[in-house]
Amino acid sequence: MAGRISDSTPRQDGFRMPGEFEQQAGMWMLWPERNDNWRDGGKPAQEAFANVAKAIAAFEPVTVCVSAAQYQNCRAKLPPEIRVVEMSNDDAWIRDCGPTFVINDQGEIRGVDWEFNAWGGLYDGLYFPWANDDQVARKVCDIEGIDSYRTDGFVLEGGSIHADGEGTVLTTEMCLLSEGRNPHMTREQIETMLGDYLNAEKVIWIRDGIDPDETNGHIDDVACFICPGEVACIWTEDKNHPFYEAAQAAYETLAKATDAKGRKLKVHKLCLTKEPVYLKGADTIDAVEGTVPRENGEVCIASYMNFTIVNGGVIVPQYDDENDELALKQIAQMFPDRKVVGVSTKEVAYGGGNIHCITQQQPAPVVRG
Amino acid sequence: MAGRISDSTPRQDGFRMPGEFEQQAGMWMLWPERNDNWRDGGKPAQEAFANVAKAIAAFEPVTVCVSAAQYQNCRAKLPPEIRVVEMSNDDAWIRDCGPTFVINDQGEIRGVDWEFNAWGGLYDGLYFPWANDDQVARKVCDIEGIDSYRTDGFVLEGGSIHADGEGTVLTTEMCLLSEGRNPHMTREQIETMLGDYLNAEKVIWIRDGIDPDETNGHIDDVACFICPGEVACIWTEDKNHPFYEAAQAAYETLAKATDAKGRKLKVHKLCLTKEPVYLKGADTIDAVEGTVPRENGEVCIASYMNFTIVNGGVIVPQYDDENDELALKQIAQMFPDRKVVGVSTKEVAYGGGNIHCITQQQPAPVVRG
Repeated sequence: MAGRISDSTPRQDGFRMPGEFEQQAGMWMLWPERNDNWRDGGKPAQEAFANVAKAIAAFEPVTVCVSAAQYQNCRAKLPPEIRVVEMSNDDAWIRDCGPTFVINDQGEIRGVDWEFNAWGGLYDGLYFPWANDDQVARKVCDIEGIDSYRTDGFVLEGGSIHADGEGTVLTTEMCLLSEGRNPHMTREQIETMLGDYLNAEKVIWIRDGIDPDETNGHIDDVACFICPGEVACIWTEDKNHPFYEAAQAAYETLAKATDAKGRKLKVHKLCLTKEPVYLKGADTIDAVEGTVPRENGEVCIASYMNFTIVNGGVIVPQYDDENDELALKQIAQMFPDRKVVGVSTKEVAYGGGNIHCITQQQPAPVVRG
Repeated sequence: MAGRISDSTPRQDGFRMPGEFEQQAGMWMLWPERNDNWRDGGKPAQEAFANVAKAIAAFEPVTVCVSAAQYQNCRAKLPPEIRVVEMSNDDAWIRDCGPTFVINDQGEIRGVDWEFNAWGGLYDGLYFPWANDDQVARKVCDIEGIDSYRTDGFVLEGGSIHADGEGTVLTTEMCLLSEGRNPHMTREQIETMLGDYLNAEKVIWIRDGIDPDETNGHIDDVACFICPGEVACIWTEDKNHPFYEAAQAAYETLAKATDAKGRKLKVHKLCLTKEPVYLKGADTIDAVEGTVPRENGEVCIASYMNFTIVNGGVIVPQYDDENDELALKQIAQMFPDRKVVGVSTKEVAYGGGNIHCITQQQPAPVVRG
């Protein structure tokens, strides 16, 4: 069944958003191609995306969705064990435009199909139109034959939330209270929506993310759950680092926080790059009206936090930075039972995100006693 | 795995094309939309396709593939139990551009991805370009995660062949020896290709089909296997019927034929429409250069033989003709264990085919001892 549910919520129907660390059925990705976002015709980005897909495929099934125009090229660049399916898109951030999968205790899976407006719509979105992106969640659910909840009138991206699977959601005020998403709703109304659609009892609000301009501060560059009761948070003691203040403030908030079950969170520190990553090669990015232009020298949102968790592994961005190895080591300590794999993804950061932003995990149909 | 096999054949690898009467996993369709082929913006055809999809869905899973432009409309017109997936196409005949599925004794499924050239390519094809259609087979196999054999340099449509699953293939000379497909190959070389890719030992050649102009005489309007050793063949005693001569000749050929196992075929007669079906409403079909135009009053290829077999059922075209009921009765006698369901599909005939042409069955992964 691939029905459209608008008259009930996951909470009402007994579905919850699981933690990313729970068992997965596989991973979804999109293939990058926008010449007005990716430098050099998108070719370096495509290589990086392919390397991410291959790294994940060593742990679990991967499906890459791709426009008709790029289908043959994408198919040729990926090994046969990776599934490639045609899907129109406006850019390649399936974390944000794809479904947030929810699961019930019988192991049944559904999708939440949030309204998507390119990170701010006509207020401060990054491009127009975004109609193809907004259909990605439903199309993914349809391929899988699962029902989806559509939140018409409520805008959210998957990268702006993390869940512990036990009733706690992590997010930022900078994003969820932004003017370009749901300005008609109060903070309390937004908390109610998160509660209803993720089956959460408590929202932990961090004030700021590290990219006010692009995603308006997605949480997935700042902090995440490692397991129930434990989070990771970006950390630097370098006061000149562009993300110093946001990192310090986020750490402080998390260090004081308790979760839905009343547990005080254990907070693991994750380093930032030693040197900020600055955009290069922006002169090869097409100028298109309606798309926010990129410029050489702008600070890229290069965070090691933007890793993705897979079955038995963690796939971590690498930036050719002095701290690359330290990040891998710290993440290995957080996840002692998983293999930590670094993938060079500076080209993904050049386009505005990283490994977590370009992936969306589908939970395994696990039955809970 | 969704690999591309070009260095071996189904025969070499132990795969065979099963009969359509064997157990199926589900049915594939495409969604019609070409305004230069379908009258009234394709809306009557879409309704007919939807009715076919719903009739099949009562027996087995159905997937309908649709362009991005028509995705939302198609999704809205079909019930949620029918899977809808985005797929670029040039028209809606998945029997001809989709994969021919083959199976081995372990129940493993693969696809044969024949080269497709719109029924004759630049020689006498029906439209140009056909590049999207030619990718349909591979995309279907990729969604299913199965390997496919590509026959570069060998053109064939699924509607031009029928198999008994036990080494016999039925086809027409009019189509397979046509100038627009494989004019560089002899009849013997073509037989070898059919043998290698369908795992067949014997090809039964019928001379002519009933539509020399469109498909160059596809077998699926003329005859098919009901089970190993038994075929159905169109039949009329009305010398004025436009298909009289082709029907008589086909019957005569089949009545004399033996199959790969040396059995003399039992031939069941299936009536034609009492009155020919003439195209109406052609003035609402867009004129597009490169597409063969349709004209009011032309004889449509309306054959009851163009039914499709599903698990436990047979879905049969109905033309608002005096013989509609007789056709259902005759088919019910051929398939005593299946429910025979008629669907009004004159609108599909207006576009050049019928239920068999717009469907492609995927075999169930049955293990054979």
